[in-house]
Order: sequence, then structure tokens, then C-alpha cells
Amino acid sequence: MMPISADRPTQPVLAIVGVGLIGGSFAAALRQAGATSRVLGVGRNAASLQQACQLGLIDDVVTLEQAADQADIILIATPIGVVGKVLSVLGPLLRTDTLLTDACSTKTDVVATAREALGERIAQFVPGHPIAGAEQTGPEAASADLYRGRNTILTPLPDNAVVDVMRIRRLWEACGARVLTMEPDAHDTVMASVSHLPHFLSSVYMWQVASAHDSTVRMALAGSGFRDFTRIAAGSPEVWRDIFLSNRDAVLEELQQVKQALAQAEQALVAEDGQALQDFLERAALARRLWASRSGLS
Amino acid sequence: MMPISADRPTQPVLAIVGVGLIGGSFAAALRQAGATSRVLGVGRNAASLQQACQLGLIDDVVTLEQAADQADIILIATPIGVVGKVLSVLGPLLRTDTLLTDACSTKTDVVATAREALGERIAQFVPGHPIAGAEQTGPEAASADLYRGRNTILTPLPDNAVVDVMRIRRLWEACGARVLTMEPDAHDTVMASVSHLPHFLSSVYMWQVASAHDSTVRMALAGSGFRDFTRIAAGSPEVWRDIFLSNRDAVLEELQQVKQALAQAEQALVAEDGQALQDFLERAALARRLWASRSGLS
Repeated sequence: MMPISADRPTQPVLAIVGVGLIGGSFAAALRQAGATSRVLGVGRNAASLQQACQLGLIDDVVTLEQAADQADIILIATPIGVVGKVLSVLGPLLRTDTLLTDACSTKTDVVATAREALGERIAQFVPGHPIAGAEQTGPEAASADLYRGRNTILTPLPDNAVVDVMRIRRLWEACGARVLTMEPDAHDTVMASVSHLPHFLSSVYMWQVASAHDSTVRMALAGSGFRDFTRIAAGSPEVWRDIFLSNRDAVLEELQQVKQALAQAEQALVAEDGQALQDFLERAALARRLWASRSGLS
Repeated sequence: MMPISADRPTQPVLAIVGVGLIGGSFAAALRQAGATSRVLGVGRNAASLQQACQLGLIDDVVTLEQAADQADIILIATPIGVVGKVLSVLGPLLRTDTLLTDACSTKTDVVATAREALGERIAQFVPGHPIAGAEQTGPEAASADLYRGRNTILTPLPDNAVVDVMRIRRLWEACGARVLTMEPDAHDTVMASVSHLPHFLSSVYMWQVASAHDSTVRMALAGSGFRDFTRIAAGSPEVWRDIFLSNRDAVLEELQQVKQALAQAEQALVAEDGQALQDFLERAALARRLWASRSGLS
């Protein structure tokens, strides 16, 4: 009988394109889980990559071409607007046994971009989206625990081999994430509602307050409600511009729904209809309290 | 020479009408500061008052009539809709040396209510608003530290004696608060912007998500951005209904401003104008980051 260890495959070489909070945390978690033998980092920002090395998130800084040659798994964790370029470079160089995945916040558009860039190698791309984030960005914010207990959504393609989807799933599970699968468009509709709309509204509101002629006194008297409501507005403008453009139709559709609800609530206030106001406030408060008790995120 | 202690006035007897988070924290802070000799509690909810006793926030449960007779300082910390009734009962019974103050989130409307209820005793009412709160409510959430380092706004009336305003100011300072004075209408405009609008938008949004046919899957996939953006929507429906009704004109005016900004941002997204999107997102992000670094509330 062969010793069991001889059957174990060598742990994969991982390449992270975009070593910020999301990519860096994926690397850190897989290292901690012993699920990778080596981590390569690719990026536009030399200082950021050097920092990722010093923090021990990656072993080496490489080019996209080197990553295509050396990596078994490549995670693309760049802003969405860059994904097309990255895949166009990687596509022709990819080994046939390398798997690509991503961490982008939208999926329909990213899948279309990937199909165009990868052509018949599209089967090597398993799209994903870890639902985790923080106000902090950059490799110094990365943490092996970022994904623990959080959801990661995979939106497998009809082209993917089941075994490949399983490999990507296992990596996210090794990070401590709960993995769900969805259709790309269902993912995008839900995310437009629970992630993109809050960011849009919070940023619009913050922009409006900051543009007021008396913004200084307003902000001096802002309290903890303002703090919570606007926290996400501090997020990366580049990342969020890309998300809104990439998920434009679903965001605009959800925005119409929110505007309808806003018009109803406004009408109740115009009419001084205390009962209607209380009704909607109660439904909102109950739903939020229920969510807090169920999500573990209160 | 008289010993110094003989010059010291006896510490005032305090009555709190509405012993929840706000009233209870005021009592706790003044007790801790040794700035009150006795605290009386008035309220509608017997269980809540008993709990306030057990927690040591108040010494005795009394009626409004007893409070008017025994208290040197009376804080009204009820929902705004109840203030008129409370003042109507207290007004005719007040000793001439008793000072009234309140903790309501709006001031123009409360001052008008007070003028009507108190008549010529209006000089005994020094309106105030501590800008502090928490998702938790009730006496069990009260804390002697709630107001430490936070702003309390007083909106003194032309009728008030300066010495009376000073007494109320000193009490808030004894709670650790920074005390500012403003005109009631200026207060209400600023609060409409930085407190009431966030609550209105967060609640409308939460209501819309909870009303969607697929709200279960939406909420199951909501993450930390959703959590922060909707936290305030869990607040008391009764308290917030009263705030919106009480500050209706200013809230509706601010809402028009926010809707204009929203229409501009929406138009940029409809037009796929990446530069315009990035511009507004950058202004929002910069303003939010600057606020965080200055407010100590990030």
C-alpha cells in the first residue's frame, strides 16, 4: 500500500491580480489554511506590492505573463474596469490546467467581458464574488479572517467543468466562507438592491451635505446616525464607479423602486399623515431588527 | 470667616419625565458628577420606571404633579408628541424657581408648544437637544458616559434669564457634553439635514427592500454596507414619526435638495458618464473621510 501522503496533490500555486484588501485577504486566508504552496502578486502599484511582500501576503511580485506561466489558480481582484485588459493578456498564455476566478461585485458584465477576452478558454473561468469588505483598503487592511462566516457567491458558467467549480468552492471554504451558487443576473439584481443602492444613496447624500453653503456647521453637528449612514460613502470612487457602470441596468431599476417608496413616504409627510408615517417606519424597524437577529451582522 | 461649604448651594432635585436612554443617561451622568441630590422619575410605563429604580437611575417614581412640587430642574425626555400634554400639566403647578428643559430633536415646534402650554411661565423653559443616541432604547441602555464629548445644543429664548440658561448649560457640561447655543430654526434646518434625512432615507430604503417579493434572498445576502446604512432604521417608529411631523417643513426642504442631487447622479449613470460618476463619488468620499478625521466619530 502506498502511504497516504503520496496520493496528496501538491498544493496549488496561487496568483493574485490586485493585492488589496480582497486579494490580500484571500491570500492570507489560504496561507493560514495551508491551501497554497506559493503566492504570486501582480499589480499596478509597486509600493503596494512591496508592502504585500513585507506583510507576508505574497511570496513574489510577478508580471501577468509570469503569473499565466506559473500559477495553478489566478484570482482577479482588481476594479471591474481593469478585468478585460487583465484577461486579454492572460488568455492566450494560460496553461490548460490553470483556473481563473474573480472577486468582482458584478457578474453579468464580467462574464461577458471574460467571454470576449478568453474565447474558447472561457471554461477555465469560474466567476465569484465574496460579500465582504471594509472601509479600509490596500494590503495593510488584509486579514486571514475577512471571509470567515461571510457569504461568497459563485456564478458558474454552463461551460465550466463541475470539478473546476468544486476546486474554487473549496478554496473559498478554506477561507472560512459560506459558498452559494446563483445565476449571474440574479446575483446582480440582488446586489443592486442590498449593496449598490445603499452605496449610491449614501454617496449622493454625502455629496449633497458637503455641497451645502453651510456644510461646515452641518458636519460639526452630525452624530452617530450620520456616521453609520455615510460610512460606505468613504469607499473607493474608482471601484464604485466601475460597479455602477457595470451593473447599470439593475441599479437604475432598483433606484426606480426606491424612488417610488420615497415618493410615498414624502406624500405621507406632506399630508401630515402620522399613521402612514408610523406604518412605514414600523415595517422598516421590524425588518431591520429581524435582519440583525438573523444575520449575525448587527 | 464662614467655612466654604456653607456657601455651597444644596444640589438640585432633578425630575426626569421619560426615563429611557436619553433621560436615564442624563440622570446617571449627573449622579456620577455629584450634581444632583435626588432624582425623581415620571413616565407612562410602570415596568420601565421600576427598572430605572432598580438600575439606580432614579430614587423615586412620582407623578407629574409631585415632580412640579418637588423638583428644582425638570428634564422632559419624552417623544415630541407628548411634550404639549406634559407641559400643560406642569405649567400651572410649577414653583417659580423651577427650571424646565427638554431633550427633543426639534426645537421650533417644541418652543411653540411650550409657549402655548406654559403661557407667561415660558421664561422657566430653556430648550435643549443633546446630540447623542444609540440603537438601544430604554433605561437599561442608559449610561453616565452617553454625552461625554458629544454636542448638546441649547436654543435659549429671549424670555430666558441668562443665569437660568447658564444653570442648564452647567448641567450638560457636568455630563461631559460640549454645549453650543443656536437659534431654534437654525437648529432645525441643520438637524433636518444631518439627522432626520438620513433616518428618513434609511427607513424608506429598508421598507422597500423588506417589501420586495424576494426580500428573503436579498436580506440573506446583505453585508456590512447594508448593515451600516440601515442601522438607524431600527430606531423607535413613534419617536421618529414625531420628529418628522414636528420638523416637517425643514425635512421636506432638505429632501428636495437630496432628490435634486439624486437626479443628477442618476442622469450620470443613465448617460454612462464615468467621469461625472467618479467626480461625485470622489467628492463624497473625500468629505466623508475628512469628517471622520475631524469628528472623532469614524
